[in-house]
This record gives sequence, structure tokens and C-alpha cells, in this order.
Amino acid sequence: MSAQATTPQPPYYAVIFTSVRSDGDNGYAESAKNMLELASKQPGFLGFETARQDIGISVSYWSTLEDIKAWKDNADHRQTQGRAREWYRTFRVRVCRVEREYGF
Amino acid sequence: MSAQATTPQPPYYAVIFTSVRSDGDNGYAESAKNMLELASKQPGFLGFETARQDIGISVSYWSTLEDIKAWKDNADHRQTQGRAREWYRTFRVRVCRVEREYGF
Repeated sequence: MSAQATTPQPPYYAVIFTSVRSDGDNGYAESAKNMLELASKQPGFLGFETARQDIGISVSYWSTLEDIKAWKDNADHRQTQGRAREWYRTFRVRVCRVEREYGF
Repeated sequence: MSAQATTPQPPYYAVIFTSVRSDGDNGYAESAKNMLELASKQPGFLGFETARQDIGISVSYWSTLEDIKAWKDNADHRQTQGRAREWYRTFRVRVCRVEREYGF
């Protein structure tokens, strides 16, 4: 489903999306797939990671804040955002500047 | 297992930890539980979220970069960090400044 993202040297940006799903699919799975496909074609898209157990955590990585804003304002994405209350009991979006990265 | 974190008005900091586990537990589950308990007592700890499917994504939230550094340098935590290669095929740590937050 999701692999780890490979991102460039910081600084770059991350959008942490955490959510609790409501019951039933209601077109969620297909829409999530379409949105990821669309996001990955946006300027400045660097990668995407996702996992869900009790809560869902998805992180998308972007070159600049302007790239994040352009994706937020994308017409198809805005239409999908309008369905958020069908799919989520609750969600939080956190826009972050990645300062440092390490690992193996 | 994990609920959504309730965090203050930005700015604050997030540590995004993504990983792929290696086979077998090797004391991982107990250590993860102990580390979360210990982290939550550290100065500046604001919250924690985690989910795992193909990859694991855990996010801890902190007041300042100094709080993150103090947790990284905690003696028990350092000892646990030394076991990372027993538990993970790969991991990435990203230290981020949260600039904006919204949701419902």
C-alpha cells in the first residue's frame, strides 16, 4: 500500500493529515486513490506515506508552501475536500517545515 | 492503541518517525510502550500518534527543538536507540516545525 518516501535535503515541507474514519466506504477508497494520483502530478510533490490502525496518519511532502497551497486549491481536490464529513469523524491537518532528517 | 493528539496553537514541533519493521518482536513492543511512557514525562511533550500497516508512522509533538534534543539525549532512550537495527529494516526521522493547523 505505502512505502517510505525518499525526500531531498531539508528544508522542505510536510503535511501531516491525521484522521478517524466514519463507518462505511462511501466512495472513500476510490477517491483516496484518485487524489494521490492527482497530487503526485502537482508541482513540488516529493512523496507520500500512509498507515491506518485506530487512526490514520498520512504525510505528503512538498518543496514549498506555495506548492501546498496550489494543491489545496486544486479544483478536483477542493471538490473532494467538500466530502470530508462523509468520510471522517474528525481530522487534523498540520503544515510543517522539515528542518532535519536522518535515519538508515 | 493510538488516538489523535490535541496540540496547542502553532508554532510547535513534530518528529515524524517512519519505519519498516524487521521480522520478530525481539522486545520491540515492550520497549515501544516504555519509551512512550518515558517520553510523555519529558518537558515539552505535547502528544503522540501512531499507526502501522506496510510502514509505521509515528508522530510526537513537542514545544521546542530543545525539548526534542533533551528527549533524544535521554539515557534510557539512547540505550533503546542502540537497538534500532534489531527492530527496523529502515527508518527515517524528520524534525519539523508545525506552522499551521486546522481540521474538525
